[in-house]
Amino acid sequence: MTAGEIERLIQLLAKLPGLGPRSARRATLYLLKRREALLAPLVAALSQASERVRACGVCGNLDSVDPCAICTDPRRDRSLICVVEDVADIWALERANVFRGRYHVLGGTLSALDGVGPEDLNIPRLIERARAPEMREVILATGATVDGQTTAHYITDRLADCGVAVTRLGQGVPMGGELEYLDDGTLSAALRARKRL
Amino acid sequence: MTAGEIERLIQLLAKLPGLGPRSARRATLYLLKRREALLAPLVAALSQASERVRACGVCGNLDSVDPCAICTDPRRDRSLICVVEDVADIWALERANVFRGRYHVLGGTLSALDGVGPEDLNIPRLIERARAPEMREVILATGATVDGQTTAHYITDRLADCGVAVTRLGQGVPMGGELEYLDDGTLSAALRARKRL
Repeated sequence: MTAGEIERLIQLLAKLPGLGPRSARRATLYLLKRREALLAPLVAALSQASERVRACGVCGNLDSVDPCAICTDPRRDRSLICVVEDVADIWALERANVFRGRYHVLGGTLSALDGVGPEDLNIPRLIERARAPEMREVILATGATVDGQTTAHYITDRLADCGVAVTRLGQGVPMGGELEYLDDGTLSAALRARKRL
Repeated sequence: MTAGEIERLIQLLAKLPGLGPRSARRATLYLLKRREALLAPLVAALSQASERVRACGVCGNLDSVDPCAICTDPRRDRSLICVVEDVADIWALERANVFRGRYHVLGGTLSALDGVGPEDLNIPRLIERARAPEMREVILATGATVDGQTTAHYITDRLADCGVAVTRLGQGVPMGGELEYLDDGTLSAALRARKRL
């Protein structure tokens, strides 16, 4: 016999990825015990994010300004676009601090199984951006999954007459990877991608 | 280079039990993609819980009314109090639907290590409640941990002259428990608690 307010909060928190009903109950109690320190700031942060954060009209990144801070950053190379499936991929690449061009978020991958076709992805805007005169290279950084690779092939075809180089991320043994534990596909890709020393 | 609003939300969500920085990022993105379906309802639910939910002045349970719905429920046995460490324990017992008396939340256990003394727990109010003329039994349902058992012993002493029966939860083999995997303490307690068939 918990209060409706508590039940409702548990149900909503349980919908977050990584939280089940059990951990949602724990999180709810944790929040209710830390009203000033955590609950109130969380309400404020959620409200602000909800009000201010929007998708960048150029690349699809999430930011509180549109175009996003990456698109308007004058220090970034405007001749390079890295195409990713999701905003989370931008975050990962930015954390690694390895790419100084701009991004393009597809919003998913082509998927026959899930009924996702080219019209469901942010592809027309990519073609448009690739045609810009300053553009030199489009790097396809979709995942090394069947859907990710299918999407990369499809985009390669669509970009054929845009006059830009189309590349994709290298494949091989991940850093720290032990051969014994790698799958056949990775081993095969690593062998094909071997380099002369 | 994510927006400050997004970073702030990730940091706050990462403080919830069960969520680390990685799953907090995933949850943040999940929320931002489901503004109407999840983010807005979550803001409302958090605000309402923050405004309305408070600790019951009688037992310490969390509810939107004070005294809580359990304390005022006329169908519950007013001669029985079940003493628990935390509100989460009330939730567990209520889900199991096995107890029809009322509760008392201590707000923790005595702990020399964490510097928690009797004055930090909701014990005086328990003594007061135990002295009520209709009271027959106080069930100590603190955990079967060192601190939980220490707390139970301490409360037993404090309740000695209140004229109520003081009991604690039975100990033994948990439902579905396989002897092979039980620890020595549980096996020893189960042997001591053996019953004639």
